[in-house]
Amino acid sequence: MQRILGIDPGSRVTGFGVIDSDGVKSRHIASGCIRLDGEVAGRLAEIFTGIGEVVDAYRPSACAIENIFIAKNAMSALKLGQARGAAICALAVTGLDVHEYSPREVKQALVGGGGADKRQVAYMVALLLNHRDPMKLDESDALAVALCHAHSRHLQARLADQARRAGVRR
Amino acid sequence: MQRILGIDPGSRVTGFGVIDSDGVKSRHIASGCIRLDGEVAGRLAEIFTGIGEVVDAYRPSACAIENIFIAKNAMSALKLGQARGAAICALAVTGLDVHEYSPREVKQALVGGGGADKRQVAYMVALLLNHRDPMKLDESDALAVALCHAHSRHLQARLADQARRAGVRR
Repeated sequence: MQRILGIDPGSRVTGFGVIDSDGVKSRHIASGCIRLDGEVAGRLAEIFTGIGEVVDAYRPSACAIENIFIAKNAMSALKLGQARGAAICALAVTGLDVHEYSPREVKQALVGGGGADKRQVAYMVALLLNHRDPMKLDESDALAVALCHAHSRHLQARLADQARRAGVRR
Repeated sequence: MQRILGIDPGSRVTGFGVIDSDGVKSRHIASGCIRLDGEVAGRLAEIFTGIGEVVDAYRPSACAIENIFIAKNAMSALKLGQARGAAICALAVTGLDVHEYSPREVKQALVGGGGADKRQVAYMVALLLNHRDPMKLDESDALAVALCHAHSRHLQARLADQARRAGVRR
């Protein structure tokens, strides 16, 4: 069983989601949004400290973040990059491995098709985690990338390795 | 007298420069480059910890960073954004005010014209700081933004305020 933190960084809202997963079944532990106000520097510091608090509170063993290369324009790419930079920093300074997945990989892992829309992804997140409370999109996107990591070969390999060491056949 | 840290963030090399300035005359204290290798997360963590170490070592009272909105494409804007995000985070978490200047403002402050090239800027940095050792461009760019802040009305106002409080006429 692994605890995975997923992050959906944004310059206005940064979503996070924590799940426990054995690579097949996953359970919702926590999720939420860090809302950002004010000056750029203050916002980036809020992302950094907010994610640090989530790591402290839930002690994940891995984390996953969406790897976005498409932006409306260079200005929005720069803003998104700054938010991602703050988020990745917060994860990396704690010594956590940061796994990156493309939006296509996340959709593929959850819906089985790279072209799914955000609502389909949100629906599958709620279904897979049996989570009935309404969620913000930033929250379900963060959980989606955590689930993508849970279903990935990285985690599968790690869990298989754990089982092998424990002398358990999977 | 104020100690100012200037940062020139980049995804491969991040330059830094520390000066002491009274708003008119400035002195070179330290400058250098943080070279970045390996995975994105590791690089961003290196920027974050590297700048943290510079802040610890030189205890600046203000810091300045170039505010870049132009990039070759969305991909390079994202990478630059991530590096800036890590750098601004490192400054913001220490409680330092982060002042942003456009490349045009930096050139205007140093060379008197917004269209100057990088070499002209480097030449003026060396001249203003009476610094004869050869410098990397990332280093002189970082010192340039620190000098820009030194010559700015923000710093002028702060120094005037200090003087007023101390009962000294400027």
